[in-house]
Amino acid sequence: MSAPPATRGPTRADAMARDAALGDLSRRDDFALPPGRLYFDGNSLGPPTRAALVRLETAAGQWRDDLIASWNTHDWIHLPQRVGAKIARLVGAADDEVVVCDSTSVNLFKVLATALVLRPGRRTILCQDDHFPSDNYIADGLAALVPDVEVVRFRCDQGRLEALDAALAAHPAAVVSLGHVGFRDGRLLDMAAVTELVHHHGALALWDLAHSAGALPVDLDACGVDLAVGCGYKFLNGGPGAPAFLYVARRHHDAAETPLPGWLGHADPFAFEPAYRPAAGAARFVCGTPPVLSLAALDAALDVFDGVDLERLRALSLSLGDLFLELAAARLARYGVECACPLDGAVRGAQVVLRHPDADAAIQAAIARGLVGDHRAPDLLRFGLTPLYLRHVDVWDAVEGLDAVFSNGEHRQERFRRRGIVP
Amino acid sequence: MSAPPATRGPTRADAMARDAALGDLSRRDDFALPPGRLYFDGNSLGPPTRAALVRLETAAGQWRDDLIASWNTHDWIHLPQRVGAKIARLVGAADDEVVVCDSTSVNLFKVLATALVLRPGRRTILCQDDHFPSDNYIADGLAALVPDVEVVRFRCDQGRLEALDAALAAHPAAVVSLGHVGFRDGRLLDMAAVTELVHHHGALALWDLAHSAGALPVDLDACGVDLAVGCGYKFLNGGPGAPAFLYVARRHHDAAETPLPGWLGHADPFAFEPAYRPAAGAARFVCGTPPVLSLAALDAALDVFDGVDLERLRALSLSLGDLFLELAAARLARYGVECACPLDGAVRGAQVVLRHPDADAAIQAAIARGLVGDHRAPDLLRFGLTPLYLRHVDVWDAVEGLDAVFSNGEHRQERFRRRGIVP
Repeated sequence: MSAPPATRGPTRADAMARDAALGDLSRRDDFALPPGRLYFDGNSLGPPTRAALVRLETAAGQWRDDLIASWNTHDWIHLPQRVGAKIARLVGAADDEVVVCDSTSVNLFKVLATALVLRPGRRTILCQDDHFPSDNYIADGLAALVPDVEVVRFRCDQGRLEALDAALAAHPAAVVSLGHVGFRDGRLLDMAAVTELVHHHGALALWDLAHSAGALPVDLDACGVDLAVGCGYKFLNGGPGAPAFLYVARRHHDAAETPLPGWLGHADPFAFEPAYRPAAGAARFVCGTPPVLSLAALDAALDVFDGVDLERLRALSLSLGDLFLELAAARLARYGVECACPLDGAVRGAQVVLRHPDADAAIQAAIARGLVGDHRAPDLLRFGLTPLYLRHVDVWDAVEGLDAVFSNGEHRQERFRRRGIVP
Repeated sequence: MSAPPATRGPTRADAMARDAALGDLSRRDDFALPPGRLYFDGNSLGPPTRAALVRLETAAGQWRDDLIASWNTHDWIHLPQRVGAKIARLVGAADDEVVVCDSTSVNLFKVLATALVLRPGRRTILCQDDHFPSDNYIADGLAALVPDVEVVRFRCDQGRLEALDAALAAHPAAVVSLGHVGFRDGRLLDMAAVTELVHHHGALALWDLAHSAGALPVDLDACGVDLAVGCGYKFLNGGPGAPAFLYVARRHHDAAETPLPGWLGHADPFAFEPAYRPAAGAARFVCGTPPVLSLAALDAALDVFDGVDLERLRALSLSLGDLFLELAAARLARYGVECACPLDGAVRGAQVVLRHPDADAAIQAAIARGLVGDHRAPDLLRFGLTPLYLRHVDVWDAVEGLDAVFSNGEHRQERFRRRGIVP
């Protein structure tokens, strides 16, 4: 290899010293992580807690033994609200402002449509240009359906307020659809400042919390956010494709209208009335019958946050990220690996992102070594960070693994070229 | 009791003789039904097969052991299509015409909206007046969202073609939204004749198969049906809130547009392109990430239909229903119990429905005896029938149980008044 010698950076002992100095959240043993695996993909699919796996068995047993009666006996019927209330506490909301149901995309459609009802004079949806694409597809889908609605993508420009200010001045929008943490660059937007600016222009602020709920403190009510959606299977560890959540600020409850009025969002579902009457609060946004087995797993998964101080979780998460980036600079830069996320923790979410032309094969090679991150085309390597189960020493081992991948030239080996559908 | 003496009707030995004469489907042992329970509520929540319970454990283990890699390793990513193909075989469709995703209500929204695209000159949605209310709420939700769309409820009049003919003549509709089997009266509509009449008026036929898929032969392609939706957790036994399915006839694939274009319905989800490009066929109607755990259970549940002749299943189901109604007439009429479903098997789905002013408490009392049916307000008792796990002797025992409930006056006892949310 012709790479210049590495600046070695912190040692493994240094990493262990940081663990000892900062302590942890005492949640690591709650997870059923396979031995020998360094799992840095909780921003894509969180691992199961032991409690979630047990709960899944319990729910299956309820189905088997109590059958239809379980809707009452085990209160399956209120799971959307009960699980919503658990998530509410993680995102700075009141219990009746959050429900769990459907997917993030479907929920986004609901709240975008209700934004048009809440701002009747306005028909523009302003979307972040570098938003998770599916979020923007959904806005486009709504606009294709409702003739006079238009979607405008604005240049987010790393969350600079000037860019949004100009976009809102040019396009008086009903709603601005934003991602709290960028799925590619891991950049954390300033929810309070952005929401204030959005309101200054008379629009509603809609945040996608897919990469922030459970990963860092979120304070929807305090920031004056109007609408939000988020994902159950990333940092909330709810299981593959776990139901998503949505938030509607209480001040909008009376006027909010779901475009998908399903029977379980009805004020009295089992009256089977001919016309829909909305349930109180965000519960009106529940639509059809929720997937109970998946929802039960999410319900139990959320208990790992009981007693966790989110500010402390955030501080530890940032420390993990700082170490990762410090080590990447010291040991991986020589292979042409660059940092593709903010160095400044204040504007970084709970993932670090690196850039390399061979990101794809490098990630596959890392996975073969038991270090699981993921790849986003064309050249990004993503690593999700949560102190619920990751330590500084794990970060050190991860970079050690990446160093080995690059120093062995595994990132250039054909056998590690992408084979699967999911990168 | 002052009730007149019962006409006794067929004896338990007669019922056993019918079982012996007609045989069964040899699927009873595939189900994990609790001992001593007579389960006649598979039209509300099907019971688990042993395979579904095992599969749920397997899927949980995949999540635990293989984490994110499971999307490729265990092909989670294609579950919506693979499970859709299994259902396609049960409803007379081709593999690429059916996908499994979201709830019935959300899927109904998608196909109603695509019907408006497929019939651009027409803006009326014609809905059966006695349709499952949620189906009509969803149509209303779409009309509230799209200004020039109107929903008209037509008097279905037990499926008489004259009523529909008049309604279509008065309201040139883009689409007619119909239930194949009525959730209250269990009436089976003539899919072929109704679809032909709908087409004669230039409209599209949209069928909800919630109470027919898995319960009787359905032949969507042969009937020329345009669009359909259905439920995974009733006669398909997929588990509580199992994902639903939708069908789009192949001739509509090129022009079909989903109003909910989510990333997993994109032609290349992981390219993260800024604009949505639809996947081929019905797969474009997949939206967000599906709830894998629930979907895996449904996948395994469907295997119980392997090798089952649906015509034979139907014949047995009708025989069960005929016996139920025969016994109800002979033994329950004296308590004022009436038949509230068609006596004629040709127009009856896979449930029998009885009527009594104390239906609510009667069902609760029956449940306390281990006989599980359900109640629909104000006065209906519903009993779902499937020869997958029910025999003639079970039907005899069920009516014996109901006879005891009424003869003991349990239907008038306060302790059996409804306590739960779910009737």
